Amino acid sequence: MTESSPYRPPVEDYAFLLKDAFGVDLVARATGGELSADDAGEILGAAGEFAASVLAPLERDGDLVGARLDDGAVHLPGGFAEAFRAFVDAGWITAEAPVSAGGDGLPGAIRAGLGEFWNASNAAFALCWLLTAGQIHALDAVASDEVRETYLTKLVSGEWTGTMNLTEPAAGTDLGAIRTMATPRDDGSWAIRGQKIFITWGDHDLAENIVHLVLARTPDAPEGAKGLSLFVAPKRLVGEDGSLGERNAITTVSIEHKLGIHASPTCVLDYDDATGYLVGELHGGLAGMFVMMNSARAGMGFQATGIADRAYQQAAEYAAQRLQGPVMDRPAGTPIAEHPDVRRLLLSMSSKIFAMRALGVYVGDLLDRGHDDAETRALGEFFVPILKGWTTEDAIGVTSDAIQVFGGMGFIEETGVAQHYRDVRITPIYEGTTAIQSNDLVGRKVIRDGGATAGRLFSLIDETVAGLRARDEASRLADQLARAVDAARRSTADLLDAGSSRDAFAVSVPYLLLLGTLAGGWMHAQAALAVLSSGGAEASRITAASFYGAHHLSRVQALAEAVAAGEIA
Amino acid sequence: MTESSPYRPPVEDYAFLLKDAFGVDLVARATGGELSADDAGEILGAAGEFAASVLAPLERDGDLVGARLDDGAVHLPGGFAEAFRAFVDAGWITAEAPVSAGGDGLPGAIRAGLGEFWNASNAAFALCWLLTAGQIHALDAVASDEVRETYLTKLVSGEWTGTMNLTEPAAGTDLGAIRTMATPRDDGSWAIRGQKIFITWGDHDLAENIVHLVLARTPDAPEGAKGLSLFVAPKRLVGEDGSLGERNAITTVSIEHKLGIHASPTCVLDYDDATGYLVGELHGGLAGMFVMMNSARAGMGFQATGIADRAYQQAAEYAAQRLQGPVMDRPAGTPIAEHPDVRRLLLSMSSKIFAMRALGVYVGDLLDRGHDDAETRALGEFFVPILKGWTTEDAIGVTSDAIQVFGGMGFIEETGVAQHYRDVRITPIYEGTTAIQSNDLVGRKVIRDGGATAGRLFSLIDETVAGLRARDEASRLADQLARAVDAARRSTADLLDAGSSRDAFAVSVPYLLLLGTLAGGWMHAQAALAVLSSGGAEASRITAASFYGAHHLSRVQALAEAVAAGEIA
Repeated sequence: MTESSPYRPPVEDYAFLLKDAFGVDLVARATGGELSADDAGEILGAAGEFAASVLAPLERDGDLVGARLDDGAVHLPGGFAEAFRAFVDAGWITAEAPVSAGGDGLPGAIRAGLGEFWNASNAAFALCWLLTAGQIHALDAVASDEVRETYLTKLVSGEWTGTMNLTEPAAGTDLGAIRTMATPRDDGSWAIRGQKIFITWGDHDLAENIVHLVLARTPDAPEGAKGLSLFVAPKRLVGEDGSLGERNAITTVSIEHKLGIHASPTCVLDYDDATGYLVGELHGGLAGMFVMMNSARAGMGFQATGIADRAYQQAAEYAAQRLQGPVMDRPAGTPIAEHPDVRRLLLSMSSKIFAMRALGVYVGDLLDRGHDDAETRALGEFFVPILKGWTTEDAIGVTSDAIQVFGGMGFIEETGVAQHYRDVRITPIYEGTTAIQSNDLVGRKVIRDGGATAGRLFSLIDETVAGLRARDEASRLADQLARAVDAARRSTADLLDAGSSRDAFAVSVPYLLLLGTLAGGWMHAQAALAVLSSGGAEASRITAASFYGAHHLSRVQALAEAVAAGEIA
Repeated sequence: MTESSPYRPPVEDYAFLLKDAFGVDLVARATGGELSADDAGEILGAAGEFAASVLAPLERDGDLVGARLDDGAVHLPGGFAEAFRAFVDAGWITAEAPVSAGGDGLPGAIRAGLGEFWNASNAAFALCWLLTAGQIHALDAVASDEVRETYLTKLVSGEWTGTMNLTEPAAGTDLGAIRTMATPRDDGSWAIRGQKIFITWGDHDLAENIVHLVLARTPDAPEGAKGLSLFVAPKRLVGEDGSLGERNAITTVSIEHKLGIHASPTCVLDYDDATGYLVGELHGGLAGMFVMMNSARAGMGFQATGIADRAYQQAAEYAAQRLQGPVMDRPAGTPIAEHPDVRRLLLSMSSKIFAMRALGVYVGDLLDRGHDDAETRALGEFFVPILKGWTTEDAIGVTSDAIQVFGGMGFIEETGVAQHYRDVRITPIYEGTTAIQSNDLVGRKVIRDGGATAGRLFSLIDETVAGLRARDEASRLADQLARAVDAARRSTADLLDAGSSRDAFAVSVPYLLLLGTLAGGWMHAQAALAVLSSGGAEASRITAASFYGAHHLSRVQALAEAVAAGEIA
């Protein structure tokens, strides 16, 4: 086995975020006191330990050996199957599942941390978990009792895994073009025929069965996306007593040779009148799929944060150990971490990662609280495309910076740091590209309510600015955040003026990145306020906030200028 | 052979740049009327044809098969040796060489185009050319008649190729730590002993001999970089009559397994009392190496521009052919290029590439003119680290955007677009990292002359602003450029205040990127002025300039804020 870089789960950062950063114990609030942030610390400590000791060591082999298709079956590198069993046995699948599905129903703020740890330690492996978890949430929301009993229970127990089957060769972003056909049979099942591509973990040897959630058209269905229905189709058919029967008519035609996440098998699946069962309403397939997709979109934020952090950790360790050259007034033999520009790179990376991590916790918590309150729910949904789009786009730069810290060694594959740059590149693409996220944000979250939710967000940021202004040490950050939120207000007004036009959608990605960058600054500002309020012992958090303010938050003005321009004809 | 993406050399862009964009026929001016931009068009047309038909088709095999080390010898994929012979026979090595070395002495503005074409069509192949060309310039500047006759003539004729041997395991950026030792022999030659790493094209089977330019220490030499001398050491020894003799004691120990440029063999070379000959002054090794390095640094700008353009071309072609979904008010089956955000991505890429390309031409011309004028030479040298640093850093984003245009298909290696994202990642590292470029810029080019050269540049930009203001159509761009140059002046003053301190070197990279971004806007502004002055038929150039102004030039303010902050403690 090739050695992977060590992984140090950022458990302390999560303790700070869950307990202090937002001025309230998020866990205690979310669970009505059943759990506290301290309890969460224990859960995350155990998860981190598992991620570091079981998942992280498999990462390099996952990249170098990768998933392989042999005689129609996908095989993972040695150790993956054992790791998955251990993952299930330790209860980490059940931890993700809601109580209504028989899971632990952990608060979203804790699940953000779990998501990061699994992805940071082994992003390819984590996708199997992520899709299974997403399917659990989808089936819990829309499936019949029968489907719940036969499939959902097996997913929650970790015996089976789940996949998401949307894309076809001629239907990627455009779901309305899906042509896979499901024809009803007399026994209540459906015969599914068609080809699905880009099916993550579509086949593997980690579990005895795989449940495919398939979007398909039915005879005489309306045209476009409104004619799509959702089905479960298992890899192996299931008897009435729950026993596993013969193989369903689903064939793994090929797996893709990808830039990264080599240990995540990306399958082309052929459905040759495969047996499926309807999930949710006929022609209402998008509803269930969107539950899964929303869960997966937030998950992508955690994935990008995790990969970025792993790259950062590797770079920081190298910079601390690599001795070279005299550094300014320091003698030869000083670690390169002391070089002003290496320090800049490391601070740039770590301050972005903290912002992403904090936003993941904040959004996870918001989505929980949104169950009881429409405005909070709207704000949570407002943030889902931002979390997905901004985190994944910015994570690319972080992994690129990690290579830069290594210099020439970073370009050598044996160093391992290039893997993160390759792995992370898929994150702004799958589960909806950044353009799709930004269209969702602009069309459904900003224009539809006339900017009301955006306005509420800006008012919340104003409160933080006011808090910062009350402290001399934070006046510069207060100014930076105030100017950024002003720019966001202007950009929002620009978009509302443009309406659903090309002018809006030509700048929807810059607008999304603007809000993500602003949100990151807001997260730092809240963290800085929390530190200052408690006596300010954690100076590194103030440094990170100051760095973010000068180097990253300043980008908001530039993005606002792009938004103001609309489409350049 | 695996099919490569087609390559369309941007010959028209070069015709515009050489003849119109700067308000003068650069070629006629540089050659005193011997050649004109129209002649250059023919040369570039032929070069483009060669690049597209001979070099580009080898690109994918170069990536997929790569260079291989077998029994101590490096072999390239089929077709590379034939391509190199054809390249030499067509005169493209001689074209690069100065007249004093027996070359064609083409103006730097034309050589910028050649450099881009070779790199765009096949970046790995182009490195062999680039290092050979760099060594030609170095030997021409500092070598004795004997070395010129024995080695330089063979390089210029294309019979042999050249390499650059600086790095050692413990001496990367810090050249002072070099430990390779050269000991004088009685016959005037030197015995070289040590290990050099990261030697690009350090061994191969394209030419009958390879000339290594080696930086080494001599007995009793001063400590650090001032004790280094330069040597040529051939792969095969050369008899007095110029005939090839036995192998020199240089062994290729291994070649690296890299993220990209797989067809460029990166060698570890072991010198076991290998025979070498002194080049230039004893202990004056850096002088000759810097000639080579400066040539290579500008070359890296062309490489990054070339790789970025190849990625762009591939993305643009895909976007024009891929039909999917209804687009705003357009029906289903519209090419994705019509999607507002795909159009944004393509314009973002192409407007950056034009800026890089124009800057390459401008700097190539400046360096020529600098031979006769100290202020012009200072400005040319001012721009070398900017061209290298900014172009290579920004090219990463362009190749990443190209993947985004492809969506999921971009992540599949067979598509070929991911290769550019992998290949380009080395460019901000080799020939001096971006930090090294920015330290050169800030320390030697800004602080040393108290900002005089920077000030002259800003005055030139002021003139362009004034020209834009005289035209209503360009008032927005004029405002944007005026604000950007103001920000650059503030940042320069901030740096001069900081002096040679950590505060300066902690923000030297943001400062370099600021000046590169500003220079790119200035290039667009001059192009737009030229188009408007000539009646404005080329609307796409105005669109590109407007896009650059709103989306890219706006970044200058953000970078200035980072510079103003100094080191964040």
